[in-house]
Amino acid sequence: MEQIVRKIALLGMGTVGSGVYQIIEQQKAEMPDKIGAELEIAKVLVRNKAKYADRIPAEKLTDDWQSILADESIDIVVEVMGGIEPAFTYIREALTKGKHVVTANKDLMAVHGHVLLEEAKAHGCDLLFEAAVAGGIPIIRPLKQCLAGNNITEVMGIINGTTNFILTKMTEEGMEFSDALALATELGYAEADPTADIEGHDAGRKLAILASIAFHTPVTFQDVYTEGISQITSKDIRYAHELGCEIKLLGIAKQAEDGIEVRVHPTMIPQNHPLAKINDSFNAVFVHGDAVDDAMFYGRGAGSLPTGSAVVGDIMDAARNMLYHCNGRIGCSCYKNIPIKDMKETKSSYYVRMMLEDRAGTLAALAGLFGSNNVSISKLLQKAKHGDTAEVVIVTYDVAENKFMDSMTVIRSMSMVKEISSIIRVYQPEE
Amino acid sequence: MEQIVRKIALLGMGTVGSGVYQIIEQQKAEMPDKIGAELEIAKVLVRNKAKYADRIPAEKLTDDWQSILADESIDIVVEVMGGIEPAFTYIREALTKGKHVVTANKDLMAVHGHVLLEEAKAHGCDLLFEAAVAGGIPIIRPLKQCLAGNNITEVMGIINGTTNFILTKMTEEGMEFSDALALATELGYAEADPTADIEGHDAGRKLAILASIAFHTPVTFQDVYTEGISQITSKDIRYAHELGCEIKLLGIAKQAEDGIEVRVHPTMIPQNHPLAKINDSFNAVFVHGDAVDDAMFYGRGAGSLPTGSAVVGDIMDAARNMLYHCNGRIGCSCYKNIPIKDMKETKSSYYVRMMLEDRAGTLAALAGLFGSNNVSISKLLQKAKHGDTAEVVIVTYDVAENKFMDSMTVIRSMSMVKEISSIIRVYQPEE
Repeated sequence: MEQIVRKIALLGMGTVGSGVYQIIEQQKAEMPDKIGAELEIAKVLVRNKAKYADRIPAEKLTDDWQSILADESIDIVVEVMGGIEPAFTYIREALTKGKHVVTANKDLMAVHGHVLLEEAKAHGCDLLFEAAVAGGIPIIRPLKQCLAGNNITEVMGIINGTTNFILTKMTEEGMEFSDALALATELGYAEADPTADIEGHDAGRKLAILASIAFHTPVTFQDVYTEGISQITSKDIRYAHELGCEIKLLGIAKQAEDGIEVRVHPTMIPQNHPLAKINDSFNAVFVHGDAVDDAMFYGRGAGSLPTGSAVVGDIMDAARNMLYHCNGRIGCSCYKNIPIKDMKETKSSYYVRMMLEDRAGTLAALAGLFGSNNVSISKLLQKAKHGDTAEVVIVTYDVAENKFMDSMTVIRSMSMVKEISSIIRVYQPEE
Repeated sequence: MEQIVRKIALLGMGTVGSGVYQIIEQQKAEMPDKIGAELEIAKVLVRNKAKYADRIPAEKLTDDWQSILADESIDIVVEVMGGIEPAFTYIREALTKGKHVVTANKDLMAVHGHVLLEEAKAHGCDLLFEAAVAGGIPIIRPLKQCLAGNNITEVMGIINGTTNFILTKMTEEGMEFSDALALATELGYAEADPTADIEGHDAGRKLAILASIAFHTPVTFQDVYTEGISQITSKDIRYAHELGCEIKLLGIAKQAEDGIEVRVHPTMIPQNHPLAKINDSFNAVFVHGDAVDDAMFYGRGAGSLPTGSAVVGDIMDAARNMLYHCNGRIGCSCYKNIPIKDMKETKSSYYVRMMLEDRAGTLAALAGLFGSNNVSISKLLQKAKHGDTAEVVIVTYDVAENKFMDSMTVIRSMSMVKEISSIIRVYQPEE
């Protein structure tokens, strides 16, 4: 029997593209057994062909998207360029032509994913994006298929490796943020402009995708509250340890009766929670469902081969679907439209570190003030004294964000308060 | 449009069956959106109908398998009875009639899985078994699909919750094995006859299934070396801590150039390995692939609803495949036949605790003896003295099992050796 060959166009040859190319070369001989077809990277779309001439056969290299789009022999388009445009246009055009698409593009999927999934459905095509969240870690198929019988109430993750590396260095070696960031840059974990990572935008995009899938409701990046880690100090990490916690940049998505919460911020998490132990550049996604209880998925959230692993898994699935004529079998799963809560309505416990005037009655006045603003205090600890100033740490019980922020406005204005040094949310496991 | 209804026969109404029944009831309203069809449990096969009369409508209860088999309206048979027979016969007969099958039966799949998958293929049916390994944890789909582009070289897991609970109690509370087992029995974590758990047979069955999938080679329970935890003492756990390790009952499957290793035994694992931190009755499966690097899957390895979660995920996938006419899309993936190594040929590092005569030259003699048997020693520690007897701990470098065992035969026979108190393998991460 003649061997079926599935032809692939690879859009982009950066970190992820190179990984995909390498894995498909390595796995060439096994593909017929694995998916009933050979995979051939027929075209590689790049801006500057000369740059890749030593690595990729000349007949495969092209800088002309239209020639790929017009080529009816191309079955699967693999978009690993990143960014919104031209990726958005290319993917839409490919789907319109009946080509299946695999993408690793979280920026795009977090904003226009729902439009593209509709387009895929209209043309009976696969649009697969396992690599867009948490790199090599299998999480989208597990959520969409293995855990499909659950009502998922919480998805929470360490989904940015750069910030986890920085926080790990601050924790293990007592480094301050700026030094840890410099080290991350030196080692290639942080990009030249690290804003998207350290401000939580990258994690926010992945969280939007995860929340959409987990709660069957369209959630986009614009819905996600984001707060970065640049204000975290090694002192706060030490104090967190005294409270039995680690500080992690968490993406937190919760589904409650009154709506969905989606937020990315530094969080104190109890040391016995599985996410507290995820260190260095590793990622992990923790899921709570009404049937499965707790589950966690751990691995490499970035990198050429790990992300390539997820992309190739998707390519193989699209090829297998072609064999069984069932492309589009798993499409958009957003059949609900649960309202998304404003950050002000979410509840959290808060850690506040502040400098107070050190005189009799200050702590009592402070506690009274929180109380009169309906913020209950779980812990109040006097730390160091510096002359006539005392460092005080307060941990509140769960309270609505707006109530807490209102009380902080009042407290900040009081003469006995010299400085609000830091405010960090504390994760309280559900009862 | 008239709603499609997929009819299910549930074989067995024990722990897992009850969970499946409950989840399908809970998810009733959402199924059409999730999989384009309703799911209806049309028949429940039990031995004693009277026992379930208060929970299940009389028209659904039956004790007659032949009536289910003959009922052409039944689309999917869900086998959650456990054991080899009659489950084996029922599944085979159901497949022959073109019914799709979902099973949670590890005992059966670890022995006859390959025969049943052939049968499923011959009839274009789904035979899905996500629940047979690690309960609710998604692991089979991740291995077969998400990580399909990898050459997987290692799958290693804590895949028995009972023994992990026992070892956790021994570790955290200094209990001895017999007391921890008694507690596990009292709390319902251990069965009346705990042999299959504590001797590693249950883990061995799951490991056979995992190894088959990871290495594309038929591996059955008979191929797996198993050793249980009843010989582990709290003293060994304390000494493990001094060596920077925890003791876990691990299922270890490795693929090397000269063959596959599959073994279950107590193992000292470095405290910084992700598996070292998996406690209580939780399970976790650690995977190493050439592209994805390290990944880990964590969650509830047993229990009514968690295992039910995996079963229902499979049922939904079979129903979705029916809609797209692509059942059998993911079948047996064993297209290789890599030889399985004899345990004697495997390599490991070993921890040996022994009582020696306490006189000058004993340690030197011992070290010399290991050396002359080609066993290199990495650590040699003198522990407590009791009168004229000294307790000594030795950790070897990696050595072939048969060489090590030969040297132990010689050492055991020496007059200066009063007792070999324990031998535990030590996990050495690959370089």
